[in-house]
Amino acid sequence: MRTSIATVSLSGPLTEKLTAAARAGFDGVEIFENDLLASPLTPEEIRARCADLGLSIDLYQPMRDLEAVPAEEFARGLRRARHKFELTRRLGADTVLVCSSVSPLAVDDDALAAEQLSGLADAAAEYGVRIAYEALAWGRHVNTYDHAWRIVEAAGHPALGTCLDSFHILSRGSDPKGIEDIPGEKIFFLQLADAPLLAMDVLQWSRHYRCFPGQGGFDVAGLVRHVLHTGYSGPLSLEVFNDVFRQAEAGPTAVDARRSLLLLQETVGAAALPEPVVPTGIAFAELVTPDTEPVAALLTALGFTRTARHRGKPVDLWQQGEARILVNTGPAVRRAGAGLAAIGLESPDPAGAARRAEALLAPVLPRRRAVGDAQLDAVAAPDGTELFFCATDRPGHPDWRADFEPTGHGPAATAATAATAAIGVRRIDHLALTQPWHQFDEAALFHRSVLGLRAQESVDVADPYGLLRSRAVTNDDDTVRIALTVGAAPTDDTVRAQHIALATDDVVAAARRFRAAGGRPLPVPGNYYDDLAARFDLPDEELDTYRELGILYDRDAHGVFRHCYTHTVGRVFFELLQRDGGYRGYGAQNAPVRLAAQHTARHLTGG
Amino acid sequence: MRTSIATVSLSGPLTEKLTAAARAGFDGVEIFENDLLASPLTPEEIRARCADLGLSIDLYQPMRDLEAVPAEEFARGLRRARHKFELTRRLGADTVLVCSSVSPLAVDDDALAAEQLSGLADAAAEYGVRIAYEALAWGRHVNTYDHAWRIVEAAGHPALGTCLDSFHILSRGSDPKGIEDIPGEKIFFLQLADAPLLAMDVLQWSRHYRCFPGQGGFDVAGLVRHVLHTGYSGPLSLEVFNDVFRQAEAGPTAVDARRSLLLLQETVGAAALPEPVVPTGIAFAELVTPDTEPVAALLTALGFTRTARHRGKPVDLWQQGEARILVNTGPAVRRAGAGLAAIGLESPDPAGAARRAEALLAPVLPRRRAVGDAQLDAVAAPDGTELFFCATDRPGHPDWRADFEPTGHGPAATAATAATAAIGVRRIDHLALTQPWHQFDEAALFHRSVLGLRAQESVDVADPYGLLRSRAVTNDDDTVRIALTVGAAPTDDTVRAQHIALATDDVVAAARRFRAAGGRPLPVPGNYYDDLAARFDLPDEELDTYRELGILYDRDAHGVFRHCYTHTVGRVFFELLQRDGGYRGYGAQNAPVRLAAQHTARHLTGG
Repeated sequence: MRTSIATVSLSGPLTEKLTAAARAGFDGVEIFENDLLASPLTPEEIRARCADLGLSIDLYQPMRDLEAVPAEEFARGLRRARHKFELTRRLGADTVLVCSSVSPLAVDDDALAAEQLSGLADAAAEYGVRIAYEALAWGRHVNTYDHAWRIVEAAGHPALGTCLDSFHILSRGSDPKGIEDIPGEKIFFLQLADAPLLAMDVLQWSRHYRCFPGQGGFDVAGLVRHVLHTGYSGPLSLEVFNDVFRQAEAGPTAVDARRSLLLLQETVGAAALPEPVVPTGIAFAELVTPDTEPVAALLTALGFTRTARHRGKPVDLWQQGEARILVNTGPAVRRAGAGLAAIGLESPDPAGAARRAEALLAPVLPRRRAVGDAQLDAVAAPDGTELFFCATDRPGHPDWRADFEPTGHGPAATAATAATAAIGVRRIDHLALTQPWHQFDEAALFHRSVLGLRAQESVDVADPYGLLRSRAVTNDDDTVRIALTVGAAPTDDTVRAQHIALATDDVVAAARRFRAAGGRPLPVPGNYYDDLAARFDLPDEELDTYRELGILYDRDAHGVFRHCYTHTVGRVFFELLQRDGGYRGYGAQNAPVRLAAQHTARHLTGG
Repeated sequence: MRTSIATVSLSGPLTEKLTAAARAGFDGVEIFENDLLASPLTPEEIRARCADLGLSIDLYQPMRDLEAVPAEEFARGLRRARHKFELTRRLGADTVLVCSSVSPLAVDDDALAAEQLSGLADAAAEYGVRIAYEALAWGRHVNTYDHAWRIVEAAGHPALGTCLDSFHILSRGSDPKGIEDIPGEKIFFLQLADAPLLAMDVLQWSRHYRCFPGQGGFDVAGLVRHVLHTGYSGPLSLEVFNDVFRQAEAGPTAVDARRSLLLLQETVGAAALPEPVVPTGIAFAELVTPDTEPVAALLTALGFTRTARHRGKPVDLWQQGEARILVNTGPAVRRAGAGLAAIGLESPDPAGAARRAEALLAPVLPRRRAVGDAQLDAVAAPDGTELFFCATDRPGHPDWRADFEPTGHGPAATAATAATAAIGVRRIDHLALTQPWHQFDEAALFHRSVLGLRAQESVDVADPYGLLRSRAVTNDDDTVRIALTVGAAPTDDTVRAQHIALATDDVVAAARRFRAAGGRPLPVPGNYYDDLAARFDLPDEELDTYRELGILYDRDAHGVFRHCYTHTVGRVFFELLQRDGGYRGYGAQNAPVRLAAQHTARHLTGG
């Protein structure tokens, strides 16, 4: 199927929008009136620019307040409409959108609406143009798709059809099944948008909060199935009014938009993509740092051992249990201080995982082709984090560890010195990544669709300087957990820290050994423990232990969660945690205390 | 009356919040639980810090989900509550807030609620603490203030009273008149918040969109009058959950907060402030610039004449009709390029205007005391713009123009050369000022309350890179009009431009003369004029004239508006306009086209 996007969905001047849409692979665009008015290009120049870019102009939009009005008003509207039909012709487009009237002059008279729309369609036909009539969710008298269709049907004019818009239909809770009663050839256009499920005024919801299919809470795919059932053969076109997208760069937004349509097509069986290959574990986390020492000291205190060194690059492998951390001092210049740059994901089919990612427009990274390097498939996530698809220890696949020269120190050396004693870390429990402000919803969709992970509910977390939002994506058995976090505003630099959470079987022992090895835990205020005593009936000595070690506590319906944090190096810190009884969360209840403590620590160190 | 503020209303760690509240002049604070938990200070240290700052701790909050629950759950709640009563005692506070339950365990049983609240009050009394019970607007069974009061009344416990919260009462549309039925001594606390009138889920509305009284749409003053009628003698306390304030600096937010309470007290007759002195005109606009030439060239093309030079400072006075522009090359270092730094407002009583501004916490600027300088009263607006209160040409008042030495060129010299010919500017029609992102609502309140101007409705304006909001403040006869604009996000630098709009009687002639004098008008796309032809039935030659000169057109119920723009110098541009027939707006309909054209122009000049 052809894909299209309304220019209002992207930021910038019209020419930038067109370029972004074409680069992302769209077949066509809807030209939004205000974008055209503000463009220095003539309609003919816009037409030529689109042709150069390989884009068709599928729709000119919107016209409004034309039907079911007094005769004199209709005459004025028809005059205005003729100007727009001529403009549409000059653009080389064949369809204009007419929204149901919101004018106080409009009357509740379907026969009059049908008659006047027929008159408009007569005029449109003179210009070789046809009219797609759409019910706005807040139309004065016509606000449901079936009502708009009844009027179109009554008019019975060949140049008059209906336009369906998933937002207008689903925001009102209309049953989209009735779409199948409309002949496909009378559906002149299909506009698609999703939205988060908000209880708010539908006009505000529509104008500010729409998002791309799959990013929100509507069953857009279900609606599209009904439309395809009618034999509709026009484009799938995105029309998304969103305050955030208005500010974001057009290029990445257009790619996100097209990815959402590819997934929608896959869901409704209109496109075949490579199957998702769900990762089965975390092979490694890679830190880049301009300065090895602070990271090495922290890893050592956490009981990691430097077990190997890359044969051709300044990269060390640190290991404890199944937790592996790469420390890369090569490309660190692009980061301010130490940062989490890459994740190795265990994949049953690394090449297949990369094929799906590529089909879904994820930037494919050049394979590492240094002498002796295993050729790892890798793509970039929306936040720039590199995702490597690994097959550690699996015969028939290149093992990334073959590129590393063992140092001779085993990861769990029983005779290790105190400074390198393992502290009981078994594996990486989860990774927490800060997302670019403009791409939080997209990040969740990316991880769901490209990696086949599940997205959990989004939670608000209070930081001293704003509300953050956080959302986890996981695989089925929770061996891969990634927490995606976003700040309250584009400028928010209070949340740039990323972290690596390490699973232990005994966090109390782990925290003690971390201290004994010279580690600096994040101090937790005493008031937190007074509150813990109020909330949970914990034995005094248990509480004293937590207080002494800075361990935080949470409980859900399934079990208990205990965790503590290290100080921050560059933009990275570590968490030691213990899950008991099937606790499922991430201690979000404790996050405000942790964030405040990190602000205090930063303030004290002048960082 | 005493004033107080909940710590949740301000950003940062607890100690910063306390300092900000004290500096803004609050008498007390409500300590929000999460702020205490995250603080490294003990309750005793917090108490001491507050005492040092001269702040009382008026409330500890919130406790919740305690009443009308099964016995076992109540026992758990009572245990938890005792911890909090002890904490409240350690803080030196005497009141804790208990919100109506949202727990699924709560039952709809007022007698049980009263009995359990009595039990809680018994326990509280042991710690010298009393309970203020409040109905949350989304409480499970108790969600109106009168219901909460019935339960408190039934309990009849001396340590149990009610807490009233204007948001919870007004967001549900409850009639606040019934408050007068509550004995004042049983109202233990009064929390105040305003909010914009949004149709949305009340919990989301409350947690993210509250604002300070006077910034939103509620009749908070009306509610307070009913409360005062009961004999309530506790503090007026602000409790505002707001995503923007969470990110803003605590100091200015606290000042804005206290200003709103001062105004509220004035409105209800609980405080006497100096009367507002409404400005009667614009005496001058002052530009600062590091480089005189581009500004002088632009003013010259606009037909202004340099009529005088300041005797002691590098400031020139340019004049045409009643429009006066000061060009200051002194303190320009603090601005990037030319910028609008100050406004002279004609005031019937400059000293009185300054007294009111000072009483309302506006920063008072040092008077200009250079030799020979008129001593002008001046304050700073929230965006940093300096407001001078002037009495131009009024006997008995110092005339700011006395400090200027005439150049000998009159403002409307009939024998002027072509380059300095007046083009018919009569006066400054309006000034458009960009507001700091965090203070848009406050800016409107400031101009209303400090200057006595009226705030018009806020409108959304689409820029190519985001939605802007704009709101005008005016005096009664529209001789003072200031348009306040804010960008879509803190980082938004696309709207930093400010402008000076100049009123003419013939904008077509003015635009022609501007061109003839070498002025560079902002180009307007041809598509705009095609649309104008579609929307309005204008004669072809009229349309051709507008097209030729880049004149934009708008019409409202009252009249017609025609306007055009100059290119931008630094951060400033000018508008030439003509109002006919009582047109009241600012051409907001045309703003997207103007903004897009400015982006295009900036792109072309690499600016």
